[in-house]
Amino acid sequence: MMLMTVKGKIAELDAAAMTAARERWDQLTKPLGALGKLEEIGVKLSGIQGTVYPSVARRAVVVMCGDHGVAAEGVSAYPADVTGLMMQNFLKQKAAINVLAAQAGAEVLIVDVGSRVEEKWDGVLHRKVKAGTDNMAQGPAMTRDEVLQAIQVGVEVADDLKARGVEVVALGEMGIGNTTPSAAMASVLIGYPVAALTGYGTGITVEEKPRKIAVIEKAIEVNRPDPADPLDVLAKVGGLEIAGLVGVILGAAANKMAVVVDGVIAGAAALAACRIESNAGCYLFASHLSQEPAHAVMLQEIGLSPLLTLDMRLGEGTGAVLAMPLLEAATRLVAEMATFADLGL
Amino acid sequence: MMLMTVKGKIAELDAAAMTAARERWDQLTKPLGALGKLEEIGVKLSGIQGTVYPSVARRAVVVMCGDHGVAAEGVSAYPADVTGLMMQNFLKQKAAINVLAAQAGAEVLIVDVGSRVEEKWDGVLHRKVKAGTDNMAQGPAMTRDEVLQAIQVGVEVADDLKARGVEVVALGEMGIGNTTPSAAMASVLIGYPVAALTGYGTGITVEEKPRKIAVIEKAIEVNRPDPADPLDVLAKVGGLEIAGLVGVILGAAANKMAVVVDGVIAGAAALAACRIESNAGCYLFASHLSQEPAHAVMLQEIGLSPLLTLDMRLGEGTGAVLAMPLLEAATRLVAEMATFADLGL
Repeated sequence: MMLMTVKGKIAELDAAAMTAARERWDQLTKPLGALGKLEEIGVKLSGIQGTVYPSVARRAVVVMCGDHGVAAEGVSAYPADVTGLMMQNFLKQKAAINVLAAQAGAEVLIVDVGSRVEEKWDGVLHRKVKAGTDNMAQGPAMTRDEVLQAIQVGVEVADDLKARGVEVVALGEMGIGNTTPSAAMASVLIGYPVAALTGYGTGITVEEKPRKIAVIEKAIEVNRPDPADPLDVLAKVGGLEIAGLVGVILGAAANKMAVVVDGVIAGAAALAACRIESNAGCYLFASHLSQEPAHAVMLQEIGLSPLLTLDMRLGEGTGAVLAMPLLEAATRLVAEMATFADLGL
Repeated sequence: MMLMTVKGKIAELDAAAMTAARERWDQLTKPLGALGKLEEIGVKLSGIQGTVYPSVARRAVVVMCGDHGVAAEGVSAYPADVTGLMMQNFLKQKAAINVLAAQAGAEVLIVDVGSRVEEKWDGVLHRKVKAGTDNMAQGPAMTRDEVLQAIQVGVEVADDLKARGVEVVALGEMGIGNTTPSAAMASVLIGYPVAALTGYGTGITVEEKPRKIAVIEKAIEVNRPDPADPLDVLAKVGGLEIAGLVGVILGAAANKMAVVVDGVIAGAAALAACRIESNAGCYLFASHLSQEPAHAVMLQEIGLSPLLTLDMRLGEGTGAVLAMPLLEAATRLVAEMATFADLGL
């Protein structure tokens, strides 16, 4: 599906199913509303799947991988080569996301949409649009056409997952330097100052942070992305893996799949996807609250509230898969709890 | 074990195991500290179990049940009979705690330490100290001896769980009216005003809340519990199921089992247990942040930080079992992730 087609397929949630689900939740043996956000999650899943009794049994996490020209500016604690090393770690099933996805019963799909890795390792979906973005501190990270290609990769991944019966998708990513474009995108799209949105990423020092802020400010000044045009923002100060995740969100929403947002990079993708098509937000679930300061602002902007507060800042989709059991809990509770009528009340 | 014996057996955590665990976490393929609270959880479990590679595979939730004389003052949205109805619901495996415990792989143990139920239903552990507390607005909820008996029930439950190989225990409870003694205990033990600690419980109205506050204030005034004597506070303004949970905490800690705190009632028990023996706090893990205002204050007082923010206010141990997969995640990550040395770095 092309982007316009995908946008047209993203429907509002099923209002009748949500009303019926709310009625069911209110009959269960608990004080009204006492299960809090689990009830909201359940009702939203009902709206997505068009049933009082939704399922999130089939799960996947998509780890979009891409490199960043801006890493040359020294914005990360790690060299760009680490993107490829971590991709190898994913393939060996030895990274944090492998461990947590195995626990959550989620399949891990590694997609190379824009890394600098030259080898074509088995187990990676090779859909490279470009070998890393250009340095956004000196010019656009990529062209508008490259953004559309990366989004298309994500849309096709979502279509494939849907065809295989997947019901919920977690957003993961790997790309040294990618908190930098994420903060830049948040600053442009939300209109907040860069300094308030920039964090320590993988672990730069207090002394290094002013340079990271200056690089982001320079990238915005050099490129002048149009805040009203999310594709322009993605092209000028975004990333290939971020655009890929935008495609996963839009494709999942078009296919009525639930999407679990991870930390600040997935948050940037969610923000851009909601600006491209506001109905996409109906399919999103927050997971954890990242330590990156831009994350809370992004979640508030798209109207999501985090479920987990674990002070994590790892990415890969780790926070998103940790939240999957909470979605499962909502589906179990609405299906398995007694009603007050069952108790004879 | 009697209370003094139990207290004497609650040791500090294994410092050598914690140091070795921290070293292992720092070698894993992630930025230093990037797994946030999961790393802290893992290190704490290592300290409890004396190994870098702890296990939380064997799980139980103890649901202590008790009634409250103060319910006659109209402090709850539900009549006291609901305690027994919900106990029957637990036995039918149809309450929220049954559904969530099944998902978490935790055994559910229902203990009648103080309900008004006269029948002895199969499936309940019958250890009734008294058929509900007396009305604390008119005099002490119970005697000091009754508190000690209820604590002893919890200690013996913990001993039995340990003997059956359980590694982590969630604190659950059922007792109409029990947010009232919980707020009273918090006010006395922490020295906060009652009005700042009193919430809507199972769902009283804004109009009814001032009466609940007045009842709690009267109970404190009538009984004058000694803030320096946690047993006196439990006896005068506590509850049988709260004292039972104090026993579970102390017994679990004495047996080197991890304990997951639930909401405001479990929080009151945790606070009292830590005042009885400060080392008990080393064995406690927070789960969710309840909507009851006393809960955040209690957790801060005992130095715990909640993992989940789900706006829940159900009790039964529901929040605690939802957090068990997060403890499991910590045990899996430290055991299964690659180190940087494994990657050749």
